[in-house]
Amino acid sequence: MLKPLGDRVVIEVVEQEETTTSGIVLPDSAKEKPQEGKVVAVGSGRVTENGERVALEVAEGNHVIYSKYAGTEVKFEGKEYLILRESDILAVIG
Amino acid sequence: MLKPLGDRVVIEVVEQEETTTSGIVLPDSAKEKPQEGKVVAVGSGRVTENGERVALEVAEGNHVIYSKYAGTEVKFEGKEYLILRESDILAVIG
Amino acid sequence: MLKPLGDRVVIEVVEQEETTTSGIVLPDSAKEKPQEGKVVAVGSGRVTENGERVALEVAEGNHVIYSKYAGTEVKFEGKEYLILRESDILAVIG
Amino acid sequence: MLKPLGDRVVIEVVEQEETTTSGIVLPDSAKEKPQEGKVVAVGSGRVTENGERVALEVAEGNHVIYSKYAGTEVKFEGKEYLILRESDILAVIG
Amino acid sequence: MLKPLGDRVVIEVVEQEETTTSGIVLPDSAKEKPQEGKVVAVGSGRVTENGERVALEVAEGNHVIYSKYAGTEVKFEGKEYLILRESDILAVIG
Amino acid sequence: MLKPLGDRVVIEVVEQEETTTSGIVLPDSAKEKPQEGKVVAVGSGRVTENGERVALEVAEGNHVIYSKYAGTEVKFEGKEYLILRESDILAVIG
Amino acid sequence: MLKPLGDRVVIEVVEQEETTTSGIVLPDSAKEKPQEGKVVAVGSGRVTENGERVALEVAEGNHVIYSKYAGTEVKFEGKEYLILRESDILAVIG
Repeated sequence: MLKPLGDRVVIEVVEQEETTTSGIVLPDSAKEKPQEGKVVAVGSGRVTENGERVALEVAEGNHVIYSKYAGTEVKFEGKEYLILRESDILAVIG
Repeated sequence: MLKPLGDRVVIEVVEQEETTTSGIVLPDSAKEKPQEGKVVAVGSGRVTENGERVALEVAEGNHVIYSKYAGTEVKFEGKEYLILRESDILAVIG
Repeated sequence: MLKPLGDRVVIEVVEQEETTTSGIVLPDSAKEKPQEGKVVAVGSGRVTENGERVALEVAEGNHVIYSKYAGTEVKFEGKEYLILRESDILAVIG
Repeated sequence: MLKPLGDRVVIEVVEQEETTTSGIVLPDSAKEKPQEGKVVAVGSGRVTENGERVALEVAEGNHVIYSKYAGTEVKFEGKEYLILRESDILAVIG
Repeated sequence: MLKPLGDRVVIEVVEQEETTTSGIVLPDSAKEKPQEGKVVAVGSGRVTENGERVALEVAEGNHVIYSKYAGTEVKFEGKEYLILRESDILAVIG
Repeated sequence: MLKPLGDRVVIEVVEQEETTTSGIVLPDSAKEKPQEGKVVAVGSGRVTENGERVALEVAEGNHVIYSKYAGTEVKFEGKEYLILRESDILAVIG
Repeated sequence: MLKPLGDRVVIEVVEQEETTTSGIVLPDSAKEKPQEGKVVAVGSGRVTENGERVALEVAEGNHVIYSKYAGTEVKFEGKEYLILRESDILAVIG
């Protein structure tokens, strides 16, 4: 299990079947980076200058839209994840 | 539904029929990016260093003017939206 | 009506009749950008990290001097306005 | 009258008769920008993140030394002034 | 013993046996920098602007994933360590 | 008298007789800028975001070492001074 | 004696006998800058935005590892010291 620190979350990227207008499925490198994912773990939140820890708004299981290119890709137990800060998440799909 | 995080809002762009002085309707790429939109969802607000959450000034349904090029365009259920921070909104039209 | 957000104000630019030494009135593009305006609407103020909202010092009707090139020009109901932050206003004329 | 905002002050520049070693009085553009001025108006002070307004240290009538090139020159009722932030004032002469 | 200061931690890098697809073990310089390590010492935490010290989330013995290229390599008693800030640690493996 | 503002101090530079290895006294422009000085006046201190004024650590009469190139040179009543922020002072010699 | 200000410390650099693989002792300019030192004086600490002074973690006599190239070299009573901020110190050796 990956337990993110501070205001970070671990995202499982939701791949979208990508087909060009002519019906050809594009190989991986030609696709745009995905922007949708599922939250699989959340950190305990950042600490403000007042010394309070701020719980995250997103929760495990949320489907989210996040900024393209944000975060760091990590491979863990053979699976790809993205670790990013909550501030890189734009919205929860719900 | 898209639920924005923090001080973000989801905007539905209000397209303006654009006609040149000679009466020709311009194709999409020749038009200036729109600056007017309707707020369709608001976040729960940013958290100050004092640990307080600050509710947004704008509300669902507000018509707003926002900074050109601000925010991130997202496509959701076949419709285009703009997700931006409240600080990128200049004024509410009311 | 335009209701600015946060510490923003809406300014109606005060145009100055500009005449060169030889008496020729300059066309618009050759004039320096104006620096004087009248406040037509004020925001409710920024929120400090302590969670307090700070009311603006300027009020509707004030004549102000503001930084050249500051703010964003908006056209509203056929009229040009400038929306800028109070921090771009240098002084009130009174 | 010009009433500066926040932590700004209005300065009346004190011109110094500038003579080269050969005794020639230099025309205006060849002189270094002056660094000494008289405070003619002060703002009500900046607001800290705690929500408190901090009164300025300088007062009307003070003679001050300020950073070269700091501030914005404004012409008001035919007279030149400099509006700058108190933080650009180095010292009071007294 | 190395006792890190503030929000720093000392990491013992976990080297991964790296083999190319053709089975050749790569010499050191051709390998990517490792991203996994074991925490061997933690600082007492940063002090917020409120004057409170914030204890670290990671603890001695934790296995962590950290940002590539983060931190400073130090050699101590013949062994290589990495000293980095807790904010450069992405997640704890647990 | 010069009364510095905020966290500034007025320094009287302590010139050091500079002689090259061949015994030639260097003219002024060839010397390195001095790093030692005597504090002749101190400001009343900066104001924190909590609204408190922080008294300076250095006092009138202190001999100090300061960062090369820091501060602003001013000429006052025929004498050269340096006005710098306390944060540019490295240490007090005592 | 040198009394550092704020969160600064005075370090006595611990030189390491440096010998190349061929056994030649390198002249000073060819050596890497040292990273180990002994604390000989500490400041009274920085003041937070809350107005509290934060005592340093390091103490006189501590042996420390610090960032290469950090701080300012000063010569005092014929001896070389390094004055740096506590945040440039990575760890205490103890």
